[in-house]
Amino acid sequence: MMEKKVVLAYSGGLDTSVILKWLINKDYNVVAFIGDVGQKEDLNLAKEKALECGASKVYIEDLKKDFIENFIFTAIKASALYEGKYLLGTALTRSLIAKKQVEIAKKEGTNILAHGCTGKGNDQVRFELTWMKFLSEVEIISPWKEKEWLAQFKGRIDLIKYAKKEGIPISATLEKSYSVDENLMHISYESGILEDPSKEPSQEMFKFTLSPKKAPNKETKICIEFEKGIPVKLVNLSKNKEVKGSLELFEYLNKLGSENAIGRIDIVENRFVGIKSRGIYETPAATILFKAHQDLESITLDKEVMHLKELISPTISKIIYNGFWFSPEMEFLMAAINKSQENVSGKVYITLYKGNTIITGRESENSLYNQAISSMDKEGGYNQISAKGFIEITGLRFKLQGITNEVMAKEMQTK
Amino acid sequence: MMEKKVVLAYSGGLDTSVILKWLINKDYNVVAFIGDVGQKEDLNLAKEKALECGASKVYIEDLKKDFIENFIFTAIKASALYEGKYLLGTALTRSLIAKKQVEIAKKEGTNILAHGCTGKGNDQVRFELTWMKFLSEVEIISPWKEKEWLAQFKGRIDLIKYAKKEGIPISATLEKSYSVDENLMHISYESGILEDPSKEPSQEMFKFTLSPKKAPNKETKICIEFEKGIPVKLVNLSKNKEVKGSLELFEYLNKLGSENAIGRIDIVENRFVGIKSRGIYETPAATILFKAHQDLESITLDKEVMHLKELISPTISKIIYNGFWFSPEMEFLMAAINKSQENVSGKVYITLYKGNTIITGRESENSLYNQAISSMDKEGGYNQISAKGFIEITGLRFKLQGITNEVMAKEMQTK
Amino acid sequence: MMEKKVVLAYSGGLDTSVILKWLINKDYNVVAFIGDVGQKEDLNLAKEKALECGASKVYIEDLKKDFIENFIFTAIKASALYEGKYLLGTALTRSLIAKKQVEIAKKEGTNILAHGCTGKGNDQVRFELTWMKFLSEVEIISPWKEKEWLAQFKGRIDLIKYAKKEGIPISATLEKSYSVDENLMHISYESGILEDPSKEPSQEMFKFTLSPKKAPNKETKICIEFEKGIPVKLVNLSKNKEVKGSLELFEYLNKLGSENAIGRIDIVENRFVGIKSRGIYETPAATILFKAHQDLESITLDKEVMHLKELISPTISKIIYNGFWFSPEMEFLMAAINKSQENVSGKVYITLYKGNTIITGRESENSLYNQAISSMDKEGGYNQISAKGFIEITGLRFKLQGITNEVMAKEMQTK
Amino acid sequence: MMEKKVVLAYSGGLDTSVILKWLINKDYNVVAFIGDVGQKEDLNLAKEKALECGASKVYIEDLKKDFIENFIFTAIKASALYEGKYLLGTALTRSLIAKKQVEIAKKEGTNILAHGCTGKGNDQVRFELTWMKFLSEVEIISPWKEKEWLAQFKGRIDLIKYAKKEGIPISATLEKSYSVDENLMHISYESGILEDPSKEPSQEMFKFTLSPKKAPNKETKICIEFEKGIPVKLVNLSKNKEVKGSLELFEYLNKLGSENAIGRIDIVENRFVGIKSRGIYETPAATILFKAHQDLESITLDKEVMHLKELISPTISKIIYNGFWFSPEMEFLMAAINKSQENVSGKVYITLYKGNTIITGRESENSLYNQAISSMDKEGGYNQISAKGFIEITGLRFKLQGITNEVMAKEMQTK
Repeated sequence: MMEKKVVLAYSGGLDTSVILKWLINKDYNVVAFIGDVGQKEDLNLAKEKALECGASKVYIEDLKKDFIENFIFTAIKASALYEGKYLLGTALTRSLIAKKQVEIAKKEGTNILAHGCTGKGNDQVRFELTWMKFLSEVEIISPWKEKEWLAQFKGRIDLIKYAKKEGIPISATLEKSYSVDENLMHISYESGILEDPSKEPSQEMFKFTLSPKKAPNKETKICIEFEKGIPVKLVNLSKNKEVKGSLELFEYLNKLGSENAIGRIDIVENRFVGIKSRGIYETPAATILFKAHQDLESITLDKEVMHLKELISPTISKIIYNGFWFSPEMEFLMAAINKSQENVSGKVYITLYKGNTIITGRESENSLYNQAISSMDKEGGYNQISAKGFIEITGLRFKLQGITNEVMAKEMQTK
Repeated sequence: MMEKKVVLAYSGGLDTSVILKWLINKDYNVVAFIGDVGQKEDLNLAKEKALECGASKVYIEDLKKDFIENFIFTAIKASALYEGKYLLGTALTRSLIAKKQVEIAKKEGTNILAHGCTGKGNDQVRFELTWMKFLSEVEIISPWKEKEWLAQFKGRIDLIKYAKKEGIPISATLEKSYSVDENLMHISYESGILEDPSKEPSQEMFKFTLSPKKAPNKETKICIEFEKGIPVKLVNLSKNKEVKGSLELFEYLNKLGSENAIGRIDIVENRFVGIKSRGIYETPAATILFKAHQDLESITLDKEVMHLKELISPTISKIIYNGFWFSPEMEFLMAAINKSQENVSGKVYITLYKGNTIITGRESENSLYNQAISSMDKEGGYNQISAKGFIEITGLRFKLQGITNEVMAKEMQTK
Repeated sequence: MMEKKVVLAYSGGLDTSVILKWLINKDYNVVAFIGDVGQKEDLNLAKEKALECGASKVYIEDLKKDFIENFIFTAIKASALYEGKYLLGTALTRSLIAKKQVEIAKKEGTNILAHGCTGKGNDQVRFELTWMKFLSEVEIISPWKEKEWLAQFKGRIDLIKYAKKEGIPISATLEKSYSVDENLMHISYESGILEDPSKEPSQEMFKFTLSPKKAPNKETKICIEFEKGIPVKLVNLSKNKEVKGSLELFEYLNKLGSENAIGRIDIVENRFVGIKSRGIYETPAATILFKAHQDLESITLDKEVMHLKELISPTISKIIYNGFWFSPEMEFLMAAINKSQENVSGKVYITLYKGNTIITGRESENSLYNQAISSMDKEGGYNQISAKGFIEITGLRFKLQGITNEVMAKEMQTK
Repeated sequence: MMEKKVVLAYSGGLDTSVILKWLINKDYNVVAFIGDVGQKEDLNLAKEKALECGASKVYIEDLKKDFIENFIFTAIKASALYEGKYLLGTALTRSLIAKKQVEIAKKEGTNILAHGCTGKGNDQVRFELTWMKFLSEVEIISPWKEKEWLAQFKGRIDLIKYAKKEGIPISATLEKSYSVDENLMHISYESGILEDPSKEPSQEMFKFTLSPKKAPNKETKICIEFEKGIPVKLVNLSKNKEVKGSLELFEYLNKLGSENAIGRIDIVENRFVGIKSRGIYETPAATILFKAHQDLESITLDKEVMHLKELISPTISKIIYNGFWFSPEMEFLMAAINKSQENVSGKVYITLYKGNTIITGRESENSLYNQAISSMDKEGGYNQISAKGFIEITGLRFKLQGITNEVMAKEMQTK
């Protein structure tokens, strides 16, 4: 019998470790793939664990710069904010990891791919759509959607039992209060005790940021510089410290944001599969970048372009959230977004303080803000009398409707 | 000669006082109209001043409840947020005041209306469009767009000179650092020293809210209850105090918001006339209501309705901002919005703290959030295996595109 | 064993007859439901056939007026045209029939429903979504998605074999060249020899309309009158014949349209399941009504409402096509559409001739068209000089961009 | 006194001839500019006339290829169709001519530009916005918006009187029944006797196309080939004649369209200035190209891209119609459109017959249409059972809403 090889997206946690073993027990040759997207875990430990479980090979790929430059920064250019609130920190990594996983599958000469995502969530979709895109003959193993697996593993307890039986080292306790996903951009918390959307989570849960109450009673003043919509320099004005380079900039901004309690949200979101789900997120750096970028656009984007972009951003957010990052529709809309960013260069001044991201000023060499014309005190090249005609013509249809209504009212009377 | 009667939107300030006198000097019979939208000024003093200037009659109309119930709450139902940031506090009053002014004109038997707005701003449009809508034969006097006036009054100094000459009591000093517009919903600041968008305004400017730094180092926990998208009850959980009634609720929420430093923004916005303009706003209560309402929608709005509403809200914001509140397009879109709000009833729990509006929980009798189905631990009526087919079909076009691309690639090779 | 009762959407054709028998052979008590949506077939014959096959009961429901008044006319009000071409004749019936089927199931005290639609098409979705909407505990039997059925019936030949074996009377020959769906609104043709989208279908295929070549070389002049977006009167001006009543009007317009070769299209459309599919349609009356209604809107709809409606109609078309007729998003958007139709009353004059639907005139009591103001010869209350200010302000941002660009160009030179 | 030089967009007609003379009488040095966009007039005769009137110089620029390749084909790629009906034949030329006029002004060293458009129409806006864009310091002479001119010329009769007095050769009679605008793409008719939108125009009016009744009783079969959304080859299959080259192709298609009565419409449209206006258009070639291109997209565009494009096209149509061709918002949206056209290559088969443009087939090397998967008879790689899960998940929210409604209903009962 030909041995079948599978590339498994591996995290080092209980679920994917059990899946790894289970696949081996089903005679698969399992190659484990760990994407390093900035999760604060010892990935070498995870690698060892995979090998212990019987993986024939383990790949650890450093995806951090790729994640920041090609995913996070792109989403910020597009002002992507799912349902007006969520910055898409998990969605973005899934598309990236799934694509790398296909590359490894091709290198390993297999078309079998596996992940450990649940059948109720978004991540399964993000993985599988990306696989289908880049490997049209993909064979997907998604245990949580397999009858056999579901019969064997009814809950967490069965996973732990299996792990013990198979000698898989586990740190997990029986009762996990909630599940956590962590990367450079954010930490997300969901399920478990968080499933009651009326209950406030405990402050102990938060791992990434200080709470507004615990944050220092002192402002941090920064300046972020953008070129064509991309952050290129961060200055901590309070400390006269300057940082460049995408990874360095992002990590330092995470530090400043975390210290100043920036970026927590508690929301109920609509999953792609139609379930409403409660999620809590900590997203320090990206929250600040999103606001800074949005503010810089206010002086560098043409008004009509800005208003059209407002209609496009929610759609891009949905595309990303639902896992269609690598899709024709994403390329279609991003062509417009990229066009719009050509002039989005300049500086934004921000004060961080106890949960607040306070924009205090902005400037750009190609600012469309014109102080002379904006001024209420000077003419500045603007002829106020022209506004008469502007309003007269703009309101013309109201006048005509008025006349129509009066004619109709009269006719009604004479009837 | 028949005396001509004009109804002037009067504020009691320097500009409209000079206009009042100027109109009288041009032989108009001037009726002054003061709309009380919650500006913290002595309106009786303004009335006296108008009479002193020579107004034949002065109307003071209490528009506060009308403003809250029919304008602010409507805008919040629609999630109206101009350019993603501005809650439209000035725009909303203008449409309301302008409509009342027409009613007074009809009562007074005239079709001549006047305002004191500049020719560069949005307010002129909001006034005049509303007038054209409700009085199609309106004759508009807008001095700042009149040649004669502009020749006479080149700047603030000319207004003061005229006021002195005509015996108009003025408190204004020659140099005003910026202009202020105040009502129940917000205070806005613009022009003058604020016209450099890179410069942070002085903390002394802010009149409505405490700064995050000055706000008490103590959380205020509240609960807001909505019925069909409208706030109907506010509970201060920290003090066990409960408030009902639109005006009482809104004013008390303003108090709590102001004390906790909620609702300041510093933005550059696109005026309707095509000028970019820097504005600073303080909007305590409405900021909290907007966020609370948005959160309640997350459990009470159907996903697809929510996503469609996201595409409509920016358009409604533009309609309001540009002064088209009373327009067929507003009625058209609000018909959909009102439909969507039928189930938006429930409670939102919020912590106010030093500039932060932290949502901590939400609940509703008609919540579409289903804990059983959302749960990652239970099946809850959701068949995970079904997700297999869902993803397979959803990703079908990717597979087909993959096949097409491969066919094309092969054909390219054989050529 | 408790007998299980199922309500089957029955057409009288080969597929649903075999399904009926197959269900009986699986010990179901089968109630057949035939929705009369104007298909030109002997439904009593179909009823007899169902009984012969063993149905315990057969319902024939006359849905024609419901179809016209609550589905076709609604779609026309919304200007629903899927992918810019398809008037949704099949989609509309499916939602209607599925809803009636639930009513019958409730009457019959069962929650088991069956249809004979393929697993590749749209109709399955339209049926099942409607069932899920109105009967949340529905148990669905959809043989073409069942393993057991698919194993037994690989193609048409197996159905015929089974029918012969079971004594089901069949008229079907082995080779059907294409499949046909017929109702009051349209006939659709797809699959079989039509599956090559580059090949023109034979003229013999068309059953509903004459071809332009065969249509009489003579114009038919008609006038259609609408009230609030709904057609209420049809006058054949060529014959001085007048028709009222939704069914009579629609049938007579079908006759006129068919004779004059109106309403054929040949398209490739995107099915909901992600497959591109070639379809050919004949839709005489609805094609004329769509155009007439669209034309009447041109004088009765406010410009901005019309332009917003243009952005909403494609979404409504998708909602209908995909089977979400009974959905919150449909209610949401139709609230706006219905608002817009309040003034869409008036007459449209049309010439039908050899495939052409030529609009020749329109009139309305509440027309917003104003001949005086529109006139190029008269002022008509329009002050042309005002247009100066209008354009000046409208183009202001171009001027400002020009200045910005020049400043930047100069700076580039000096660098 | 320094002589002032003005570049006048000159047509050779009565209006611009009188304007030319009038400007000279006001001591302007007038340079006449005639843009050749395919109007069927003797432009050399117009040139002579301009010189006779006193123009110091006359430019005739052949803009035909530029018009076709950079304007018409772009609009067709974007599926631009104003208010669902108008292909924008006049709008497109105005932006082009206005831009060329600026180039000539720069060459001639002046910033004064003039046109002869009325103050009620769209053309004035299209000219002036383009001028403001490319010549921010432009000085505009638009006589029909000038007090002095309007005082002197109240109507057509005054123009004729002035022409006679000044010795301007005129062919115009006093009463023109309607006004005509002609170019390669279309002829438009408006005003005069057409201003009653309920009256059918006389058949004698139409200059470009035969009427369906007069067109030959014989089909013309053609094939149009596109590359990346651009038509590159036209084959008359009936005559085995092949044409390439943008101008040749377009002119030959105009011929075929005209002979077969293609492209007449009679509409009421909303002008940018808020007036509803009745227009009649003949647009043979572009009508056929629009439909052919739209059809080719049905097999070459991804479904989601097509559906997004449907939401963008109406906005592009408005942008073009209103004269914003050269705007940031046009660049923004066209970036997406151009991306979408990369695969829009292939052939469309069409039958032209007595007003009908009948699509009979289409094919493309990069077709996304997949006959195997589309087939109702074969599996073709599509697993029908998967559709079960697809529908189950897609309809999940309906089930949940059903459950919510039932819970609420029960609670209502127990109250």
